[in-house]
Amino acid sequence: MKTPGTSDLPAGDTLPSWNGGTVKQSIVDFVTRAVSKDDKDFVLPADRIAVFDNDGTLWTEQPIYTQLAFALDRVRALAPQHPEWTTTEPFASLLKGDLQGALAGGEPALAQIVVATHAGMTTEEFGRTVHDWIVTATHPKTARLYAEMVYQPMLELLGYLRANGFRTFIFSGGGAEFMRTFSETVYGIPPEQVIGSTGKLKFELREGGPVLLKLPEVDFIDDKAGKPVGIHKHIGQRPVFAFGNSDGDLQMLQWTAAGSGARFMGIVHHTDAEREWAYDRTSHIGKLDSALEEASAKGWAVVDMKRDWNNVFPSAAR
Amino acid sequence: MKTPGTSDLPAGDTLPSWNGGTVKQSIVDFVTRAVSKDDKDFVLPADRIAVFDNDGTLWTEQPIYTQLAFALDRVRALAPQHPEWTTTEPFASLLKGDLQGALAGGEPALAQIVVATHAGMTTEEFGRTVHDWIVTATHPKTARLYAEMVYQPMLELLGYLRANGFRTFIFSGGGAEFMRTFSETVYGIPPEQVIGSTGKLKFELREGGPVLLKLPEVDFIDDKAGKPVGIHKHIGQRPVFAFGNSDGDLQMLQWTAAGSGARFMGIVHHTDAEREWAYDRTSHIGKLDSALEEASAKGWAVVDMKRDWNNVFPSAAR
Repeated sequence: MKTPGTSDLPAGDTLPSWNGGTVKQSIVDFVTRAVSKDDKDFVLPADRIAVFDNDGTLWTEQPIYTQLAFALDRVRALAPQHPEWTTTEPFASLLKGDLQGALAGGEPALAQIVVATHAGMTTEEFGRTVHDWIVTATHPKTARLYAEMVYQPMLELLGYLRANGFRTFIFSGGGAEFMRTFSETVYGIPPEQVIGSTGKLKFELREGGPVLLKLPEVDFIDDKAGKPVGIHKHIGQRPVFAFGNSDGDLQMLQWTAAGSGARFMGIVHHTDAEREWAYDRTSHIGKLDSALEEASAKGWAVVDMKRDWNNVFPSAAR
Repeated sequence: MKTPGTSDLPAGDTLPSWNGGTVKQSIVDFVTRAVSKDDKDFVLPADRIAVFDNDGTLWTEQPIYTQLAFALDRVRALAPQHPEWTTTEPFASLLKGDLQGALAGGEPALAQIVVATHAGMTTEEFGRTVHDWIVTATHPKTARLYAEMVYQPMLELLGYLRANGFRTFIFSGGGAEFMRTFSETVYGIPPEQVIGSTGKLKFELREGGPVLLKLPEVDFIDDKAGKPVGIHKHIGQRPVFAFGNSDGDLQMLQWTAAGSGARFMGIVHHTDAEREWAYDRTSHIGKLDSALEEASAKGWAVVDMKRDWNNVFPSAAR
């Protein structure tokens, strides 16, 4: 897969934010062969399935996951309706601005925050709430919209793949409904190609018509071993191209790698403390350890953000 | 929606197996308006989502669901490996050719048959088994391949919708993995647009590589109130066009109908005992009762198979 210099296509045009080098060349080589009918690595159009993780692969996941930032804003917005929160953890700490204190309760505390902000309303109400937030909420470090904290090189890659007949899917541990409110605008990926974690839903016939009520129960966690399961449930086909950035993506990469014929596995390694963040093996968010080992052992492409990307974020407001 | 004679498009060309009349005209009217930019019923390309039930809507479900026929054939094929089945119900009756006796055990008996034939193998093994069956198994009444027991008018409708920019999805109570083995060939619908009931899966790293193991546990039943839930989970968008044939499709039709803007809801009513089957309110398979009432009350399109279709099955081997 990593055989530089074998492509006849000029690489510079469609991936301008990627510096020339092994990774860019391996992407261009793979795609060039995949669409070349006479190449042994030709991929039938029906099989051109590319899957991407979202947090840390397509957009920034630091200093906290964007969806957690949304949940915290919702706790603040809903607090007047919940006077009991001023004395109940994790809400009390959150409302005092003490995120660490709030999350000290671990998974159960996080689950309480998710339930309080992601359940007990209809899917339409939730969608509107996320939409209103995503078009206004800004990142604490850059003051850009969260939706502008996407990686320009990955946007180019998504477009390049689609221009070559690939269907581009997102498989994220984040919430499917959350991502779908902006995936089409931000990534050019329609809702049905965005798969993520989900809560249980209940169909109800109300006077005003049927609704889907969001229940406070987990339906599916699209992370780690859940990713290949989600891929099979939603696509029913094995991808030939996969990109992730953390150990949560390892099984998705393994599943993609294990198919027959040509395939491409890539990892975004966050190495750029100046333009973004630098983190990997010991990070609480986006831990990249065993997947980095396996990438090295198997020859998967590893993007060194600092080296491989001449541009991280879209330059202008989008 | 049912305003005949308002379309400028010739209806005859793309839907030749549909007799002229209210239903055909309402389909053509809807689609013509949906793609006409200046029409008040114009539908944005991104919103052109059409959903179809499978059994009884796209292909025959009589005298038993095709997937049950597959399961029964599998029981017979696997019997030599299960000597205990000769004395254990529901298998003992099945192996004696007594389907009624086997199904006398109700849901639990059916569940035992499904588990014995649909779990305990990898997804790849199951896919191969279904594929081998579907290209050879024939219908008991017509001796045609099951895959040739699809409705020609509905094939034309799927093609007509896609030619007008609609994405066509299947939402079936049947198994997603079962349908995906032939959906692309038979319906022109790729696996990721085929949603059905699913069992739980387990990702396992084996020596030969990772596999997804089919567990004997229900994950999701894509029927009745499960259909709008499945639609939201998989598409994240409300359809504008829906077609079913039984009470199991009612909630999908209600969910589609409740959106804003133009929409089309249709039901296949099996009225043709000669060319196919005639059944509705009292049928064990494909019971059509409350959905027929609601269609009448709401003015949904109801296909009278005998009257509206001049051709039921594809004429030549496919």
